This record gives sequence, structure tokens and C-alpha cells, in this order.
Amino acid sequence: MPSHVDASPLYLDDLTVGQRFLSRELAIDADQIKAFAAHYDPQVFHLDEEAAKSTFFGGLAASGWHTAALTMRLVVETAPLAGGVIGAGGELQWPKPTRPGDVLQVEIEVLELVPSRSRPDRGSGKMRITTRNQNGDVVQTFDVRIILQRRT
Amino acid sequence: MPSHVDASPLYLDDLTVGQRFLSRELAIDADQIKAFAAHYDPQVFHLDEEAAKSTFFGGLAASGWHTAALTMRLVVETAPLAGGVIGAGGELQWPKPTRPGDVLQVEIEVLELVPSRSRPDRGSGKMRITTRNQNGDVVQTFDVRIILQRRT
Repeated sequence: MPSHVDASPLYLDDLTVGQRFLSRELAIDADQIKAFAAHYDPQVFHLDEEAAKSTFFGGLAASGWHTAALTMRLVVETAPLAGGVIGAGGELQWPKPTRPGDVLQVEIEVLELVPSRSRPDRGSGKMRITTRNQNGDVVQTFDVRIILQRRT
Repeated sequence: MPSHVDASPLYLDDLTVGQRFLSRELAIDADQIKAFAAHYDPQVFHLDEEAAKSTFFGGLAASGWHTAALTMRLVVETAPLAGGVIGAGGELQWPKPTRPGDVLQVEIEVLELVPSRSRPDRGSGKMRITTRNQNGDVVQTFDVRIILQRRT
């Protein structure tokens, strides 16, 4: 599966349903997990290895929002959409937590492409963004509606 | 609408469908928007006021993931669920962007409560988490499936 290697912006017209993009790999460590959590999700299973052992997660785990934020970083690097990667929303799932030492990789699959009926310069798309760890376990899926530009 | 003022942990048995919790207010400024974006969503409309003017957003806007992360901070402070606030996933929408100077407030509404059939100490719930700015505009909704503990 080729990643998008050149930096030329992608328009709706450049995409096809079923097309996939694969990001680089990105490692996450315990200090990063704790620093994110201290700002945005200060719960014991995201902050303290020892105390996390007796929680639902059985050990330190990244906030789901940290997984989501790192995923976005990889998406932006991997799919240089014309006008930017702008999501309106979608279905977000965290089947497994991200753990210290995990190496994340993101796959983007084009599910739908919908040219606007009223605006010839615009459209939308649906993409499935899947985040996996180094074992191939899925730690996040996001089926997102994306705003797309058209070549005019 | 009362917020949850004491810090005693909340079990499934303490919650009722239709119950609501209201967070404190949390301001966000341009420096915070840019710092988050530099790490997690480095796109021009999240990084540079001037350059953002000619984009879809017409000016600096927070990453949706920044809105989501700040929302989580307020949720954790507002709803001290027994065992922690642990979401499995759900439907996430960003109807409007968060802007520099916005003051965010989160409302949590209990939509469903489902005791586990197999485990008397556990259950799940569905909550609608709505994030509004100082004008009452909704900047995010998240209908999330939450893991809940039961009193045993």
C-alpha cells in the first residue's frame, strides 16, 4: 500500500473510493502519555503506572484523546488534502488502549466521495481512519465526514 | 441545573436517565490553540491568524481534537464516575469551530443505563456530552458509550 509521497495537494477529483494511504510509524512513551493526561484527561490510569495496575486498564494507558490527537498528526502528514484536512465529525471507537512503548501507524481508506450539487468547487468524502499498534491491534477507528475541494 | 459538587464517586446505581451535569467554564486563547496544533494538528488555520483568513475557517480556529481534549478535562472534573470516566467510543460532531477567546462549558446528559447481565458489578451507559461556547453555540457533541461500575 503506497503512502502519498509527494506533497501536491489532493482534490476530490484525485481520489477514488477504496484508495488507501498509510502513514509513517510514531512511537509513544510513558512520559508523553502522562503529560497529555495531566493537561486533558487527569485520571489515575493515564498518570501513574503503579496505581493504574488496580484499575480497569490493569496498567498505564494513553487517553483515547491522546490516541486521537496523534492519529490526526499522522493523517495531516499522510493525506495533504487541498484546503486542509477538515472533518465535520463521525463515529469514533477505541477497541483497545494505547500503551507506553506502542508504535502507532494510521491507515486512511476513502469510503465515499460526494461532489456538491450546488457548489462546483466543493464536495465531501467519508474516510475510515484506522490506527494500529506494532502488533496490528486496532486502537482506534474513526469514520469521518471530510470536506473536500474540487479542481475548477 | 446542578453540577456534581461533592467528590464522592458515582456508580450506575446513583445515576438516572435524563440526569444532567454542568461543568465549570474554561477559556481558550490563541497561544493554546497554536501550541496544541503544533503538536497534533499542524495546519495553517490552527497555527497562523493571518494565513487562516483565506482558509475554510476564515480565521484562526482550534483543532477539533483540542476542543475534544478540553471537553474531556471538564468531563473528568464534573462527573467523578467510580472507576473513572472510560469511554468505548461514540458519535462525535463539530458543528462549529472553537475560536480564540472562547469560553467553553460542557453539559453531560445521561441517555441510557444498562446493567450487565453477566457481571453484577458492572454495566454501561450512554451519555451525550455537549460543549458550548460563551454564546451558547454548540462546538462539539459526543454521544459516548461509557463503562460504569455498580455498587455490590
